[in-house]
Amino acid sequence: MTINPYYTERRTVRVYKNCPVSDKIISDIAEAASHAPSTGNMQLYSLVVTRDKDNLAKLTPCHFNQPASTNAPVILTFCADLNRFEHWCRINDAKPGFENLQSLMSAILDVTIFAQQFVTIAEQNGLGCCYLGTTTYNAEEIANALDLPDRVIPIISLSLGYPDDDATKTPRLPVDAFLHFEKYNRHSDDIINNLYKVIEEQPDNARYIAENDKDNLAQVFTDVRYPRSNNELFSDKFIDYIRRQQFMK
Amino acid sequence: MTINPYYTERRTVRVYKNCPVSDKIISDIAEAASHAPSTGNMQLYSLVVTRDKDNLAKLTPCHFNQPASTNAPVILTFCADLNRFEHWCRINDAKPGFENLQSLMSAILDVTIFAQQFVTIAEQNGLGCCYLGTTTYNAEEIANALDLPDRVIPIISLSLGYPDDDATKTPRLPVDAFLHFEKYNRHSDDIINNLYKVIEEQPDNARYIAENDKDNLAQVFTDVRYPRSNNELFSDKFIDYIRRQQFMK
Repeated sequence: MTINPYYTERRTVRVYKNCPVSDKIISDIAEAASHAPSTGNMQLYSLVVTRDKDNLAKLTPCHFNQPASTNAPVILTFCADLNRFEHWCRINDAKPGFENLQSLMSAILDVTIFAQQFVTIAEQNGLGCCYLGTTTYNAEEIANALDLPDRVIPIISLSLGYPDDDATKTPRLPVDAFLHFEKYNRHSDDIINNLYKVIEEQPDNARYIAENDKDNLAQVFTDVRYPRSNNELFSDKFIDYIRRQQFMK
Repeated sequence: MTINPYYTERRTVRVYKNCPVSDKIISDIAEAASHAPSTGNMQLYSLVVTRDKDNLAKLTPCHFNQPASTNAPVILTFCADLNRFEHWCRINDAKPGFENLQSLMSAILDVTIFAQQFVTIAEQNGLGCCYLGTTTYNAEEIANALDLPDRVIPIISLSLGYPDDDATKTPRLPVDAFLHFEKYNRHSDDIINNLYKVIEEQPDNARYIAENDKDNLAQVFTDVRYPRSNNELFSDKFIDYIRRQQFMK
């Protein structure tokens, strides 16, 4: 078995050439990506492409104006979409019963699989992407900015364009950290610290620790990047939104 | 741009040769797949490999003994894993605040991206896979069967092996159904029925409709495959489980 070196060498791209990406390229990649697996072949997703300057300006604040978003010629919003499937059911005298979390889960898995297949195909064809990571924080604001109908929930956003940076690939945990044969391996404290060493030793991280006046990288994650107060605020917002969209009681 | 024809020609495999898949192959694919994007590079996932006959026998009932599971030499359980990251935080005097739905969402996206990258690499190297689609229905039973620690939630299961079938690829919706430029396209009833025609015309579907005494394919989905009563039962179970695992109040 010889794994294509693309998979281990790929990297996230956050800076793009000032150069458009055509309808045909986006459409061809989306078509190819749609052959990825989906729950019961229902394809419970939609992809909204934003390239118009005014529309981008509505969208980037929902992503906290992070540079990967403000700099990109294209933002792709991947949505869990029950609306289209329920529409098809209703006009065929079928009564959909999808006002619940399992149905949303199916759509979240479908759209994430589709988005990742899009990324792989795009990157293998010379494009660069960045998962913005902020979509479920402001899902309702994004839905409003895109004028989405009910039951279409933004889950993933990608910035997309032709790479214009010299960023290198980011290290990953050793496979022993996350791969378990037959039985989940309960790692000891020492082993855990050893497994995360490769992440801690990334050159950028020393700077993040110093800039934020923290003792170590773990504290950057818990106190600066993903603090409890933010996590709870954005969880409450997301739960309220999916309740109003009838995915939870 | 020339998209690798693998992406449009791939198919799901549900019948496997009676032939093992080695540790090294699984480990090499998992390592390569781990270079897929992940939230803040936290890699909030684990993969548990089941090949032992007794362990498989514990797992397959959780997947309703569907043939793709009982027939497979390997079942892979992809889990949203906050346990490992929180462990690393705690032993480094960092206070994780991840008892909430956004943290679980990050882990669900991470593990789904990782699983789909695993599928793509496996399929490109001669293996066949099937998403079992039943993991979140019985997530707690699967966690018990695998003896997972707290805060490790099964999200996706794949059966894996060398293909031994002649199944062909399944059609997908035309790209216009799910791809929207600038503005979400609210399709009319006629257009919706046209878009789903390619799915309705699949040869197997006429048989499903007849066997289940239904008028059309939409009713097979709403009344037989994904009826409201099941969706609600398994949603309540999943919500109870993630509450007890401290991901929701």
